[in-house]
Order: sequence, then structure tokens, then C-alpha cells
Amino acid sequence: MSFSARTDLAIEASAMLARKPGDTIDGVQVDNYSKESVNVTKVRIENETGAEKIGKPIGNYVTIECEELRTSDEAALEVSKEVLKAELRELADINDDSVVLIVGLGNRFVTPDALGPNVADAIYVTRHLFSEMPESVSDDMRSVCAVAPGVLGITGIETLEIIKGITERVKPDLIIAIDALASRSMSRISTTIQLADTGITPGSGIGNKRMGINEETLGVKVIAIGVPTVVDAATVANDALELMMNSINENVGQDTSLAKALAFLNDENRYSLIQQVLYPYVGNLIVTPKEVDSIIEGVSRVIYESINCSIVSKSGNIPG
Amino acid sequence: MSFSARTDLAIEASAMLARKPGDTIDGVQVDNYSKESVNVTKVRIENETGAEKIGKPIGNYVTIECEELRTSDEAALEVSKEVLKAELRELADINDDSVVLIVGLGNRFVTPDALGPNVADAIYVTRHLFSEMPESVSDDMRSVCAVAPGVLGITGIETLEIIKGITERVKPDLIIAIDALASRSMSRISTTIQLADTGITPGSGIGNKRMGINEETLGVKVIAIGVPTVVDAATVANDALELMMNSINENVGQDTSLAKALAFLNDENRYSLIQQVLYPYVGNLIVTPKEVDSIIEGVSRVIYESINCSIVSKSGNIPG
Amino acid sequence: MSFSARTDLAIEASAMLARKPGDTIDGVQVDNYSKESVNVTKVRIENETGAEKIGKPIGNYVTIECEELRTSDEAALEVSKEVLKAELRELADINDDSVVLIVGLGNRFVTPDALGPNVADAIYVTRHLFSEMPESVSDDMRSVCAVAPGVLGITGIETLEIIKGITERVKPDLIIAIDALASRSMSRISTTIQLADTGITPGSGIGNKRMGINEETLGVKVIAIGVPTVVDAATVANDALELMMNSINENVGQDTSLAKALAFLNDENRYSLIQQVLYPYVGNLIVTPKEVDSIIEGVSRVIYESINCSIVSKSGNIPG
Amino acid sequence: MSFSARTDLAIEASAMLARKPGDTIDGVQVDNYSKESVNVTKVRIENETGAEKIGKPIGNYVTIECEELRTSDEAALEVSKEVLKAELRELADINDDSVVLIVGLGNRFVTPDALGPNVADAIYVTRHLFSEMPESVSDDMRSVCAVAPGVLGITGIETLEIIKGITERVKPDLIIAIDALASRSMSRISTTIQLADTGITPGSGIGNKRMGINEETLGVKVIAIGVPTVVDAATVANDALELMMNSINENVGQDTSLAKALAFLNDENRYSLIQQVLYPYVGNLIVTPKEVDSIIEGVSRVIYESINCSIVSKSGNIPG
Repeated sequence: MSFSARTDLAIEASAMLARKPGDTIDGVQVDNYSKESVNVTKVRIENETGAEKIGKPIGNYVTIECEELRTSDEAALEVSKEVLKAELRELADINDDSVVLIVGLGNRFVTPDALGPNVADAIYVTRHLFSEMPESVSDDMRSVCAVAPGVLGITGIETLEIIKGITERVKPDLIIAIDALASRSMSRISTTIQLADTGITPGSGIGNKRMGINEETLGVKVIAIGVPTVVDAATVANDALELMMNSINENVGQDTSLAKALAFLNDENRYSLIQQVLYPYVGNLIVTPKEVDSIIEGVSRVIYESINCSIVSKSGNIPG
Repeated sequence: MSFSARTDLAIEASAMLARKPGDTIDGVQVDNYSKESVNVTKVRIENETGAEKIGKPIGNYVTIECEELRTSDEAALEVSKEVLKAELRELADINDDSVVLIVGLGNRFVTPDALGPNVADAIYVTRHLFSEMPESVSDDMRSVCAVAPGVLGITGIETLEIIKGITERVKPDLIIAIDALASRSMSRISTTIQLADTGITPGSGIGNKRMGINEETLGVKVIAIGVPTVVDAATVANDALELMMNSINENVGQDTSLAKALAFLNDENRYSLIQQVLYPYVGNLIVTPKEVDSIIEGVSRVIYESINCSIVSKSGNIPG
Repeated sequence: MSFSARTDLAIEASAMLARKPGDTIDGVQVDNYSKESVNVTKVRIENETGAEKIGKPIGNYVTIECEELRTSDEAALEVSKEVLKAELRELADINDDSVVLIVGLGNRFVTPDALGPNVADAIYVTRHLFSEMPESVSDDMRSVCAVAPGVLGITGIETLEIIKGITERVKPDLIIAIDALASRSMSRISTTIQLADTGITPGSGIGNKRMGINEETLGVKVIAIGVPTVVDAATVANDALELMMNSINENVGQDTSLAKALAFLNDENRYSLIQQVLYPYVGNLIVTPKEVDSIIEGVSRVIYESINCSIVSKSGNIPG
Repeated sequence: MSFSARTDLAIEASAMLARKPGDTIDGVQVDNYSKESVNVTKVRIENETGAEKIGKPIGNYVTIECEELRTSDEAALEVSKEVLKAELRELADINDDSVVLIVGLGNRFVTPDALGPNVADAIYVTRHLFSEMPESVSDDMRSVCAVAPGVLGITGIETLEIIKGITERVKPDLIIAIDALASRSMSRISTTIQLADTGITPGSGIGNKRMGINEETLGVKVIAIGVPTVVDAATVANDALELMMNSINENVGQDTSLAKALAFLNDENRYSLIQQVLYPYVGNLIVTPKEVDSIIEGVSRVIYESINCSIVSKSGNIPG
């Protein structure tokens, strides 16, 4: 019944890491580095103890943060691309004969959700060339294919089912799934790129229960690339209320009536207030910057160029 | 400095009317009628006294409300179109030889702002036929032309300047300007169509100061058709906070410390809280339903078909 | 080496039928009827003898022709929709519990090839509702899902492979595949809708060799809906040359030098001339009306509304 | 009555220049240079004698040719941009205080005609900043604004009228008009960029009679930038027929009957053949490569980035 904030971001879910800088957690390795305006945080969850503490499955999580991505700054896009290429190559850990399937998750008709399809559409696919005209394939190329399976409301089919069907026929050695995420924080919108080799649960960020797209369900390693592009409107309203309660607490002396006032503002009442503000929508309202179209375009380019140069091309060159 | 809510809607600005049902206001005539699921409110501000009380210029304001427009219900779209055609014909009050210029305001690249351009693009234009091949123009047609002048950030030219330039050359007898509006309330999104014969100030709903598009600036009568398509994110946050304050007030006994707590939550502090929640954006965040694309499409069709049937065609038929 | 004209249209391939009106062919049944401006030709190939004579597999072929579709005439769209609904229902021959998969073939980024994806995107899908919220599904609904699998050049995966993978998981009782076709004749562009219960070979019309999408390859009955939207540019040039040769033949007395001239214009030389005219493209040039966008939109609507009313809805109503 | 080929390209219209290399024509100066894969031809028509001989008004014509533009080759796009920047700066001949109006001609809803609107939409406009927040304008910026006035069939207003209206209010020192052109030759599609300081007549290439957009009609210097993006389908058919006649002539001995055959194929009969091939369209059929969307995107970028760097920025840098 209580209002639970929606987030897909590992770095947010494991915010405890940020709260205790310098701390070491058993079973969790954390590394950081920077390249110009880009900050990279690499979290490695090594065992069940770590998984439990962080609340995420065992695996590798890389978070690339760059504020300038928000304004589609050319230099920032370039550095982010270099970093993403390197991290992707490391996580992928494939060989020259590997077949890779790129999956662009999300709804291409809802602008902030179109990141995945945008990327899939721009992948330099080569798999068909290997069988149809092998002489035209340069030695630098890997066999790569790409699909944008659509969303449940448009297809009537679970996304996982479609990917399973395709995976069974294509038999890739690696799947890379790209998705737009919901975030708790406006400041993350289009400024954070998250990589994880533990797969993804589409729609998990906005409260839907879909089956995970991961090695367990598909039988092949899945790298997920996620970028926050929206904040849920209820989150914005809830954050405003929480900030207000904190402010009251800090600025006003504690006494009986105030304690009573704040106690009144428990999760349930707060959720009811939010429902009134967002009526008649509640479920499906998103907050985005007006210029979301060009923001999505910029970050899509960073991702598809990185995949083209680090996965399709063995040497890191632009294919084609 | 204080946070002022943004609204373009006359019916919201003059909410006092709704607060005092049955009241008569000197210089203000109010009429209501319904047709199936569509409610129509007609406000006529007759003199300066009324204008001052309502806070709107002398003129006619028609508000068409239909909840089912939100879900693009076919029957609701049909009735709304019938009502809009009738009201538009009455407000327009043109004769058979009148030349009409349709102006689609807004940014075609920002989905919820594309209503105006969408409508302008779909108008059955005839003006060029009158001069170029008059024999091909049926007797049922009026001379109609249509432009989508773009927005200041894309053109570098004030919208009013562009319309002035075109008006001086086309010399229309009537201008109909269509624009997407910001609303205070989620429930109005795409469910309300507002007509006014006093023109429009583009961007007024979202805080920009642009010169008005009206008879005073253009020398020709201007009918504005507006539809709320977004709520400003700051409004959502602010409404959440206001509701909370009201709840505290109602649910908790008044005493010194609570009074102090609520006094602390004045406009300025509230604005600062909202800035924190929306950081780093503040200015430009909008709340929309996810499916805003199809909502805009449905209500655009209601408007352009109404114009085609009541302004382009003299008899009310579909032209072409 | 010789230039072979590209066509997907059964009615063109079997033009022999038209050349011999009144003829009966063993193993082939032909019926005609009209409804207002719409003409319907139903060809039933009953056995191998008929199949050999027509050059098409055993099965049912329905051709719906309406010139007014070219101008998106509202009345013509309406009648065509009625006819298509009836013919589709007859060919489909499904029961209330059947599960139907709609497949929109073609490239959504190439306007005249986007017919299939446009239709798939607008299908009222219900399959997920049957499992997730069966109480929300009206008794009038069948279980329908829809995909737009993309094209080989964008995905790197044979379209048939993708459909096979999805079919194996969804297990539909019927597949309806929609595709834009190439035609030999400008007059067919967007004026002809062809139905066949023998499936389709995507890209067959424009010279690619892809595996067929039919009952043999998929293990489930496939109805194909095709609409010609382009003529290959080489066809236009070739037709001009053929007409010219015919004109020379008819208008000039036959003698040695002319016979020599015409003999010179054999297939190979003609193909070489066409290559010069179309250089440096040859392979990939299409002829379309300028307003192809709105033409595709009109005919897409006819098809998806017909499917929604005759396949999704059991009673023929608009679902939703 | 005879079929006259449609072309907008000066270099094609003045093909006589190419036919007589080395020739000097009185009143006409011709220069050539190359930069990597880009060839530049500069024709200066100095007086009425030259104008008459070339069939073009007195003025400067620059043709930039690069075959690799067809495949959106990154290196070729880069060199073309450098060349276009330099030539544009020379032709423009403006000073630091000049106000420049960019006009994107054409129909944004017809892919091969959308070049002009695409460019206008991507211009870094600054004019409004000079009046509204002059402190935010860097010293490197000129005052630039941009409009896409639409086409007659969509607006009902002559394009020239709209531009005149805007010009009278904006009072620019220079207008740069961008338009997609029709060409006689497939090989020019998207490989040729033509500059002229004598303005442009929109739609002239495809047979419409519109008033010119030039210094005479607007009272301000107009530079036109044109790129061929389509070939008229009738041209393709006509070229096939002409090639055929030439082949007959060359390959077959001349005698009475052949002479008679070829005499029969005069302009009028040829036009009638073409009408049969293209029936029922004739007027409005275009030939384009299937991938026209991405071709238009590449060449649009060359143009808008050149304008941003050579007109908006005084120093040649990317603005913003």
C-alpha cells in the first residue's frame, strides 16, 4: 500500500556505498576513476554476502557519470564514448568468433522510452553478411545482429518471450540489452550510463513486474546498458513532501503537536496526498525536460557508436 | 521571487466563478449547456467592471470539457467536434467572402507543444486556389490559409513579428490561433478546449513574456483555441506541498509550534524546496502522461476537422 | 543477365486470366463482384494443374481494387474497409478461441515500405490481457498479438527466423502478414489490396531471395495482405523501351533494316541502356508519387481497422 | 506540348561549358579547383552577353561535387563542409554587424523535399538573444534567424509572400535560401551542392511557376544553396528512350525505313509514350534511392554546420 519509489539504478539502490565512503564491505569491491569530466564507479559483488548487503545479484556494475551529457556537449559525448567503449569491451570479454545480439528495449513511440530502439536501429549489423556474402565482410568485423522487440502494450507478447524465441534461433554468445530507466533524481537524467553483466528487468523501474532478461532466463550472458531518462511524477511529489518534513524538523523546535503533525504524515497519508495532486492519472505520469528529444538523441549516439566501435569492430574503428 | 503558478486557462484564472455558483457578477454573463458527455461553459465579459473582476479582457470565452477526450474515445471525439464546430461558427461570425488565416503556435519538435503545428498542417487550405485556379474552387469553400510560425528558440524571431509580416501580406478578415497550454491541474490535460475571441499570448502559460496575438497588435479579430497538454513540474511539487499544509492544518490541533512550522512554509521557502527537488532543471520540466503522443493526435483531429467543416466549408461538410 | 520485371502481385503474374475473359481453366475458379467503386476478384487454385497454369501455389487469392484509394477518398476508404473485413473473415475461418499473430513486414524507416509496421503498430492487441487481467477482456475479443520484425539490413537476421522464433513461443492458430509490394504498373500503386492464404515471400517483389513466410515454413496457416506502393525505376525505363519498340513495329513498315534494329534491342542491350540511365544506382531506385506518406497512411488505416474489426472483435465492432 | 526536361542545376543548364573545355566565353569566367575528393567549379557571369549565352542571370555560381557524399562517407562530409564554409563566406561577403535570415524552402513532410526545413531547424539562431539578453551573446556571434515557410499546397500562401512579410519586419542584410532540387541525372543525387548569389525560384525544377526569391523581389541579396535529391520519373523514361534512339542510330545502318522509324519518335510521340508508362500519375512521380532518408540527413548536416560555422560564428568555430 505504501508508496515505494521507483528506481532502476544500481548506484541509487546501493546508495549505502556512497553514504559510507572508505568503508569496505565484505564481498564487495569498489573502484573509481575519472577521465576529464567523466566519473566511473565500478562495483563488483563477489559473493552472496555482498549481494545481500547491496541488494543486487552477484556481478559487475559500472556507472559512468558526466553532467555535460545533459547539454549534449560535444567534448563530453566524445570522452563518454571512449570510456564506454573501454568498459564495454572489458565486460563483454568476447573473442573474434563470438556472435552478439543487441536488444533495444522500450517503446519507440514514447520519446523518453525510445533510447533502446534508437540504439538498435543504428547498430552496424553484420551477421547476415557472414552467411550471405562472406567475401564482403572485413576481417575486423564480428557477427552482430540487433532487434527492437517492442513493448507488451504494443505487441501483446512478453518482451522476454520474443527475445527467447530469437535467441533460440540466433544462438548468440552474448546479448547486450539497452533500456531507458526511471530515476529517483532529476540530476541523473541523461547524465548517467549504467552497465551491468547481470542483465535487466524491463519496466522494473516503473513498477511493472516483468521477467528478467538475464543469463538465467536466456542461457546466455546479458550485459545491460541503462540510462535514466525520466523521473516518475509521483517521485517528484513525494520528494517535495519529504524535503518539507525534513525542513520542518530542522527549523522548528520539537514538541508534542509537531511530532503529532509529522507522525500524521506517514507513508499512507503522503501517498493519498500525491494521488490527489496527480489525479486522474497517478500511474503513468512522467517528468521530463522539454528538450527530451535532443537529449535522447545525443546519448543514443554515445551508446550505438560505442557498440559499433567496441563490439562490431575488433580493432575499435568505426565500421563501414 | 515567489513561485507563481502558471496557467493559461481562463476557466482556472476565473475560478471564482465556479466557487460561487448562481452568483451574478455585474458585467459578466455565464451560460452552461451539455451535450452527452460534453459540458460547455460560455462566459461573456461585457464591460470594464466585469473584466476587472474576472481578470480577463472584455470578450467571449467558451470552455468545452469532456473527460472521455483523455482516452481518445471515438464517440466523445465526435460530440466534441460537433460542439466545437457550432461554437467556432458562432464566435467567428464571418461571411462567405471572408479570408481566414489559421496560425498553429508552438514547437513541432516538442510532442506536447506540437498541437498548433499539427492542426495547421492538416487544414484544408484554399486561398491559393482562389487566385490560381478559381474554376476548381467549389462554391462551398471559403478562402483559408494556414501557417505554423515556429517558436522563438528555433527561429530567433518573435512569433508575433512573423504573424504580423504574414498578416500584412495576406490581409485576413479573421485569424484563428491554436496553441497547447499549460494547466494547473492534471485533470484538464487534453480534456478541455478553450475558445476566446480576445486572442492569446503564446508562452504566457509557462512564464515567458511574449507580446499578445490579438486584435490590438494585429488589427484583425483573433480567435484563440487552446488545449492544456502539460502541467509544469514545479506546479505538481507545489500542489503537493500546499495539500500537505492544508492536511496538517485540518488534522492537527493548532498551537504555537505548529503555527510556527506552517509560517515557516511561506512561498519563498516552498520555492526553495521545489528548486531542490527539481535540481538541476527547475525552469523547463513538464509533467505529461506517457501516451502524450496519441492524446495530442486525437485532440488535434477534433480541432482541425472542426475548422475544416465550420470555417473552410460554408455548409459544414468535409471539404475535398 | 536479362532484365526480369519485378512483381509481387498475383493478379499481374496471372495476367493470362485477364487476357482470356470468359475462359475456364481446369483447376481454377474465378469470381468477381463489385461494391460501389470497389471491384473484387477471387481466384481459387484448386489443384496442381491450376497451380502450374497460373504459376502460383494452390490456395485462395482475393484482389480488391479501388481507384479512389489513391486520393484517400473517405467514402472509398470506408467501402474498401467493409469489403476487406468480409473477405478477411472468410479467408481466416477462425473460431472464438483462436490466437492470431499479426506480422508487419517491411522497413519502417523507408516510407513506401512502412505499410506493414504501420499496421502492426495500430493493431488492438489483447493476448497479454488474457493471461494478465482476464477480467478486463470483453467476451467480444479474440487473443491477438502483433510484431514488426524489421528487415534483414537493419537486424542482420532473416525475417523468417525472427517470425519462427516468435511463432514457436506464441503458438498462434493463424498468422496474418502485411507487406508493401512492388508492382509493374503505376496504376496499381495504393489502389489494390491483395489477400492470399498461401503466405508471402518478403522482398520477392524487389528481387531479393528470402525464404517464404507460409504454412510450410511456419507450421501454421498464413494469410498475406499486400499493397503495391512502389514501382521499380528499372521497370519504368524498361516499359518505356518496350512501348517504343511496339510503336515502331506498328507504325513503320517492316523491312530488313528495321528488323535488324529491333533484333538489336534484345533483353541484354535493353538492360545495358537502363543501367546507363540509372547509373550509378541501378539496384535500389524506386518510383513513388510525391505524396506517398499520406497514401501509405490512408491504406494502412483501411487494413488495421479491418483487422481490428474482423479478427480482434468477434462481432465486427471497433474494439477498445 | 513537347516534353521539356526539368532541371534546377546551373551546371546542367550550362552544360555547354563542359562540352567545350578550354573555351573562353565572352563575359563568363570559369575556375576549377579540387580538395581531396571534392571538385569545385566557379562560374562568374559578368555581363548581359554572358548571361544570354549561359541562360542564367549575371552573378556567381559555385558547384561543389563529391561522389562520396552519396554514401555519407564521414571524410567526404568533412571536406565538403570545409569547402562549403569557405565558398559561403566568400559569396556572403558580410560584416560583423550583418543580420542574416536563413530560409529553408520545401515540404518537410515529403522526405526528399525536406532538405531546406531540416537545415533551417538546425541553425543556431541568435537574433533574439541580441535584443533579449545581449550579455549572453558572445563576441563571436552574428545575428542570425531562420524560418521554414512551408509550401503553397500546405499553407495556401505563396512562399515569396511569406518571406516578403518576414523580411519587411526582420530587415536582414542577407538571405540564405536552401532548397532540394530536381536533377536530370541520377549521378547528381546528393553529390552536388550548388551555390548562387542570384537567388532561387522554388519549384522551378519541377515545373511550377513561382515567383523568384531574389534581390529584385526582396530588396536584399539572396544566396541560394541547392542540392539535387530527386529525378523526375518522366526524365528517367525520356532518357531511356533517347539512349535507345542513339543506340539504333549508331548500331544499325541508315536507310529509308529506319530514318522513318526515328523520325516517328519525335518529341510529341515520345511524350505520349511516357504518359502511357506513368499513367495515371505523369505529373508528380519522383525517382529516389530507397535510402533517401539517411542521404538527406547527411547532406543537411553538411549545410547547417557550414552555415553555423561560417555565418553565425565570425571565427569559423562551432557556436554554442
